[in-house]
Amino acid sequence: MNILITGGAGFIGSNLCHRLYEQGHTIYCLDNLYTGRKKNVEDLIGKDRFVFIKQDICEDDLFKDLHFDRIYNLACPASPPAYQKEPIHTTMTCTVGMYNMLVVAQEHGARILQASTSEVYGDPDVSPQREDYRGNVSCIGIRSCYDEGKRCAESLCFDFQRAGRADVRVVRIFNTYGPNMRADDGRVLTNMICQALKGEPITVYGNGHQTRSFCYVDDTVNGLIKVMESDYKDPVNIGNPDERTINSMAVMIKKYLDSKSPIIYQFLPADDPKQRCPSIEVAKYLGWEPKVCLEDGIVNLIEYLKKEIQ
Amino acid sequence: MNILITGGAGFIGSNLCHRLYEQGHTIYCLDNLYTGRKKNVEDLIGKDRFVFIKQDICEDDLFKDLHFDRIYNLACPASPPAYQKEPIHTTMTCTVGMYNMLVVAQEHGARILQASTSEVYGDPDVSPQREDYRGNVSCIGIRSCYDEGKRCAESLCFDFQRAGRADVRVVRIFNTYGPNMRADDGRVLTNMICQALKGEPITVYGNGHQTRSFCYVDDTVNGLIKVMESDYKDPVNIGNPDERTINSMAVMIKKYLDSKSPIIYQFLPADDPKQRCPSIEVAKYLGWEPKVCLEDGIVNLIEYLKKEIQ
Repeated sequence: MNILITGGAGFIGSNLCHRLYEQGHTIYCLDNLYTGRKKNVEDLIGKDRFVFIKQDICEDDLFKDLHFDRIYNLACPASPPAYQKEPIHTTMTCTVGMYNMLVVAQEHGARILQASTSEVYGDPDVSPQREDYRGNVSCIGIRSCYDEGKRCAESLCFDFQRAGRADVRVVRIFNTYGPNMRADDGRVLTNMICQALKGEPITVYGNGHQTRSFCYVDDTVNGLIKVMESDYKDPVNIGNPDERTINSMAVMIKKYLDSKSPIIYQFLPADDPKQRCPSIEVAKYLGWEPKVCLEDGIVNLIEYLKKEIQ
Repeated sequence: MNILITGGAGFIGSNLCHRLYEQGHTIYCLDNLYTGRKKNVEDLIGKDRFVFIKQDICEDDLFKDLHFDRIYNLACPASPPAYQKEPIHTTMTCTVGMYNMLVVAQEHGARILQASTSEVYGDPDVSPQREDYRGNVSCIGIRSCYDEGKRCAESLCFDFQRAGRADVRVVRIFNTYGPNMRADDGRVLTNMICQALKGEPITVYGNGHQTRSFCYVDDTVNGLIKVMESDYKDPVNIGNPDERTINSMAVMIKKYLDSKSPIIYQFLPADDPKQRCPSIEVAKYLGWEPKVCLEDGIVNLIEYLKKEIQ
């Protein structure tokens, strides 16, 4: 198949490029390189069946002479420091960009998968979060450019679907980790591992009792492909329900790195979610569940980050 | 002042045009006439200090040669049948249109007021709804084009405000009624009054126990101007907290019209809110509260609709 992956030079996107390339597909990897990096796909550049396109999905008149069978829309900065740096562009990427890609899907007769996010649930007041939970999102806060942008993108997806204009799949991706993350992306695992590797104090925001559930990127990529090729048309959570406190992560990282770094506590940023845990009943019904446990996956992330920050 | 009113030929917009015109301002009334009607402002067309512009706020390059001091952004279909007819355009009006108007505000140094909506609260699980309530909105349902569009518009407003790019005010308008409503707009009061006037059965959706709070348009217009000219920069609910059941409204309309129409019950549409009642503590603090009671206002609406459906 001809497969377009927007945000294909980003963390999850580049892992998806590699997987689908290995399966024998022709990959069109589009990225504006705002947070994505060419080095994430440099081993693929120049190969048959791999085309890199530097472009922003907010631009018009995309891909007039190409034909796609599948579109994975992963284009959007996803770490809070990155999406908050240009918040208005984040919103436009989620709305105008989503609209553009849905129109491309319609024109090409391509199936499109939207990479939505657990952030549509905001700071959830139920746990685990099922797909029918409506969320607890501030629509005016500093995270709203991403959270509301992604909610609005889902709304567009389902209106295209209801109108019969596009064949749409939607996954809500929970925290994911693994190779090709940016060392400086500001997320908790990369932050803490890099601090420990550099011998700096390990920062925990808030009291560290808040939880996250981390899914290894190989599992996440499997989930995206599984949902894309399924007939299931409602949103599907993709994440690992193995919930951990931030404190326990800090302790684990110290242990793995035999680190002497002290753990220091700082104020929690505004609207930071206090817990996050996916219900994955729907994904299980579709035949997917995560396979890689945190203890194994984090070793790979540590090895990757050691090279990254050299 | 030079004042731009988008959606100025619509229900609330046209009432606002008249009020601000009477106050001596120069009014630029913009409307794409999708649900707005020129007849709502026809008495103003041709006068000094009143300019009608037929245009869509999703278009680029607006108003290069004009200067505005104030912008009221009321452009968006607001009744469910109207905004669900072209849901994708509804979303784009809320996002691209909002972005365009914020850029105009920035370029003109104009203060901008966004007409947001009680729909940002969705089907609320608390009552009355305060401005800090985060809502209960389905981001994939048939109302989401409007609800999520408006939430995303607020997000854009506050990002422009935080960036110092525009001086923004946001009001969340609850159900409003009065002259210049479309008889066919599909909302509960117009529906029931027109049915009674035509001698048809009066339709109640659901069991009629769901509540709404209706604010007379003169009060709403006062509220918009009050917030626009205040220094208060967070969202402000504008509505009448006098909560009524749909059943009691049907009975009142039958009484006022001495109608023999039977009341019939039909299924509630998807995601229809079961209650809606504003907390207006913030608006009161700013010196606004509604003055017109439902019993008085509905007489005006009935007289207006009698002429409309002749």
